[in-house]
Parts: sequence; C-alpha cells; structure tokens
Amino acid sequence: MPRTAGQRTAPATVVRVRHDRGESVADQVDDVLIVEEPMSIQLDGQVVTTTMRTPGHDLELAAGFCFTDGLLAGAPVIDVRYEPRHGGGESPPNGVDAATANSVIVDTAGRAPAPRPRLGNVSSSCGWCGSEQIDDLCLRLGPLAPTPPIGLDVLVEVSATARETQELFGLTGAVHAAAVFDREGRIVVAREDVGRHNAVDKVIGSMLLDGRLPLSGHGLYISGRASIEMVQKAWAAGVTTLLAESAPTALAVESARRAGMTLVGFLRANGFNVYSSPSW
Amino acid sequence: MPRTAGQRTAPATVVRVRHDRGESVADQVDDVLIVEEPMSIQLDGQVVTTTMRTPGHDLELAAGFCFTDGLLAGAPVIDVRYEPRHGGGESPPNGVDAATANSVIVDTAGRAPAPRPRLGNVSSSCGWCGSEQIDDLCLRLGPLAPTPPIGLDVLVEVSATARETQELFGLTGAVHAAAVFDREGRIVVAREDVGRHNAVDKVIGSMLLDGRLPLSGHGLYISGRASIEMVQKAWAAGVTTLLAESAPTALAVESARRAGMTLVGFLRANGFNVYSSPSW
Repeated sequence: MPRTAGQRTAPATVVRVRHDRGESVADQVDDVLIVEEPMSIQLDGQVVTTTMRTPGHDLELAAGFCFTDGLLAGAPVIDVRYEPRHGGGESPPNGVDAATANSVIVDTAGRAPAPRPRLGNVSSSCGWCGSEQIDDLCLRLGPLAPTPPIGLDVLVEVSATARETQELFGLTGAVHAAAVFDREGRIVVAREDVGRHNAVDKVIGSMLLDGRLPLSGHGLYISGRASIEMVQKAWAAGVTTLLAESAPTALAVESARRAGMTLVGFLRANGFNVYSSPSW
Repeated sequence: MPRTAGQRTAPATVVRVRHDRGESVADQVDDVLIVEEPMSIQLDGQVVTTTMRTPGHDLELAAGFCFTDGLLAGAPVIDVRYEPRHGGGESPPNGVDAATANSVIVDTAGRAPAPRPRLGNVSSSCGWCGSEQIDDLCLRLGPLAPTPPIGLDVLVEVSATARETQELFGLTGAVHAAAVFDREGRIVVAREDVGRHNAVDKVIGSMLLDGRLPLSGHGLYISGRASIEMVQKAWAAGVTTLLAESAPTALAVESARRAGMTLVGFLRANGFNVYSSPSW
C-alpha cells in the first residue's frame, strides 16, 4: 500500500462480499482508506503525548492539544514546528520522510510549567473520580461568561453545513469531524481526523494560532459523541455551545452544567436534544 | 444527577427539540445517559494508565489492558483486585465510594517488566512512524498461526447476533461493543463500554482470566472502526478474524496483512468488505 508522509488517504484493493438469499458473491474493487500515523507532540523539549492522527494540520493539532489539555497554563505559544533534526519547518516539504513529519514541537520558551510524567506516583491518580475531575476543571477554567443563546433554528442547520465540509468522510467513511461555527451558523474552521479528539484539537489549535481565542459566543460541532474530554476542550476554548451528532455521557452533561455550557446531542436534520443550558 | 460507583447508566431530564417547517417545538423528557468514570490501572504497584470507562467488568478491563498493551510480556496474572486501601476485593461492595471502585491492581508478583514512563526521553518516540510500529508488533507478537477461514455466511450473521447483546447501546446510544465469537458464529463473550478500546480489553481480559487465550480460530467483533490499536489487541489475543461494523484505517489493513489476520469492515446485514485475508 503506497503511503508517503502527509498523505491523508491511501488506495487499496479490497474484496466486496454481497450476501443474498444464502449466496455470497465476492468482487475485487478499488477503495480509499484513511491514513493514521503516530505523531509525537513535544512541549519545550519534552514529549507530552504520542497520538494516532490523520496527517495534515499537524501544527494546529500540537498547539491545540497542549492548550486544551491545560499544559500551557496561560503561556503563549512562541513557535510550533516540525522536529528540526531531520529538516523541520512550518510544513513538511514534499518527499520528506515520515519521521520528520511525525514529530512536532510546541515552543513557549520555557514559560509553560514542566509537564508531569503520566506514569509514576500511585497516589497521584488512584481513587480519582469523575466528580473530582469536574471540580478540577472548575478550579482551572472557571465558569464560562454568559452569552446570548444561539437560535434553535441555527443549531438545527449546523448539522447539514458541517457535513458539507467533511471531504475525508465522504471518501473513506472513517473520520471524525469538528467545526467552530458563529452565532449565525457559519462554519469558521472545520477539520477531520481519524481521532475525534484530534479533530477538536485541530480546530481549537487553528483558532489559537490565529489569536482568536476565547471563542465566546461561538459553537463547536462534533460528529461523534460528547464525552467529558470534549466538554473540557470546548470549555478551555471558551465555547459556550457544544453540538454533538451523537449521545453525551453522564459526566459530559454534568461538566457542561457546571461550566455554564449549552450541550446539545443527537443532532439531526429535524431536531436535537438539549442536555444542559445556562438558562435553566 | 444521581450516580453511584458501579452504576452504568444515569437518569437525566433533557429538552427534546423538534424542528418542522421553520418551527421549533421543545418538550421536557426523561432520558438515560451512559456513565463514564476514570479508572486507574496499576501493574505491580505502578499506575500504567487512567482510562475513562463505563463501570463494570473492571477487573477484566485492567487485566485485558495490561495484556493487549504488551505490558505483561508473558507474565501470568496472579491476582486482579480493586485498590485495597479503601476496602478492595473482587467486586466493589454495594455503597462503596467511587474512589475504591475506580482503581484496580493487576498483580504479577513482579514478574512483568517494570513499565516505562510514557513521558520522558524525547528520542524514545519522536520520529516513530506507522511502519515501525508494525515492525515492532511483528517482532513482539510474531505471525498468527494459520486457521481454516470462517465461512462468509457465518460472518454476515455475526452483525445481528452481536447487536442482540448490546443492552447499553439500546438504552443510551452512546457505547461501543466488542464480542468474541467462535467459528459457528456463536458469541462467547460480549462487553459494552463508552470507550471502544475498553470494550475490546474487557472481552480479551475476560478470556485471559478464564485461561482461554490464545483465541486461535476465533473472531473478534467490534461495533466501530478498526484502527491499528484494534488490530494490535486482536493480534495479541491470537484472534484470526477481526470484524468491524465501520471502516478500517490504512495502518490497520497493513498490520492485519502482516499479522496474517482476516480483516473485515463495513459489516452489514447483506455483506461486508474484506481488507486482508491470509489466503491472498
């Protein structure tokens, strides 16, 4: 299967089986697969995570992850670049080897606090429960500033407009999407990725690098479910309305209520469910 | 929102909005949400991960994660138990506090190698690419022993039989499922979880704790997409056929081909696609 760094889809020959009245018919057909590749994110020289992602918008992903995960703690991003020892730069040049494109550095000139190891002291995370996790977010992020609610008719239309941006999904059926929209329902930025967290980090990273955070009064659309991590990312970016195509979890609803965020799930062309609203 | 340790769903009051010819109608309705709670997994006294999971089958999840992630490296699991300092035991007693139920210890009496920190030396993961990841799996796991292929008619029926086991999905629409099935298509064990990785770790952990690994000649059904991590988990358990309801990634297909695993995607009631087959 031919695959080069930075490519987001790959061609493949597959066997399509159709089953009808007890008979199976198999045909060889050409198909398009989504690419996933590991990418390491370094914050001021320390690897903070390695994520499986679809190549593209890697700098946004790196900046967005550090921001939404709270690793920046208010520090400004001075620079984001590919790992320089193999070449580096703002975008991977054509024909670059995968190794170069799969490692990105977020640089705050040491102003971000040193990241804590994820493995180590047993007492640091055992016994942690979901409510404590929300308390922690409340302390760190504070409640969202109230904004006028976005119209119900605007929200119901975002599903269709967001879907129009999902080019990779149309090709492969294998990616998640995220999009920031304004109060008129216009898509500001949209990204797709094999990882649903990555798609959100890419849109938020894009707004961060453009100096457009916080996203007060804006909405965030996600093509999948709303877990607490999605609420956390939206909350960190100052998003006041989170719109999910699928179901939220109990902890996501609880955290959206604590944040003062409108949380909508099961978004369909003819309606949706509201799980949290600051006006309640 | 009332929620106690070990509960897998939570009641919620939500507002259902229906949009018809420019009019929005809102009704308050009772709904059921899926619970997600963080759970720490300790291997021989060291926290190796904290995962957001749906409570239930926690010991299977802990054992399965350590096994499929390669952390056991062949060491036997001597014991799996809840964190004892708050009580502990095989299952969390009724009314136990969430802290107790959210930390599980996998005990190999020190026979598993010391887990490596996930954060640290920059050179350990930067530049790592997908192909190297597959090389690493090939070295660690070796090719799967060939088994007679499972009939196409059996595979097409697994979709329906697996769906019958998805009780939480029916209630909440918010969980992934995984199931091990035999060559006649009978479900051996099925689990649901808010995390798709967790659902797989729970079924494999269940088989591990029952002394039924490797699963040679068996199939693994997953309700979502097939990423490389899914292939890795199936491969570690000796599964020779991986059946996904949704699309595989390019790296998943590449690794299944290297493993000698049959990989099926887009499983529907009337057919599916075969992306990898050892008989090609």
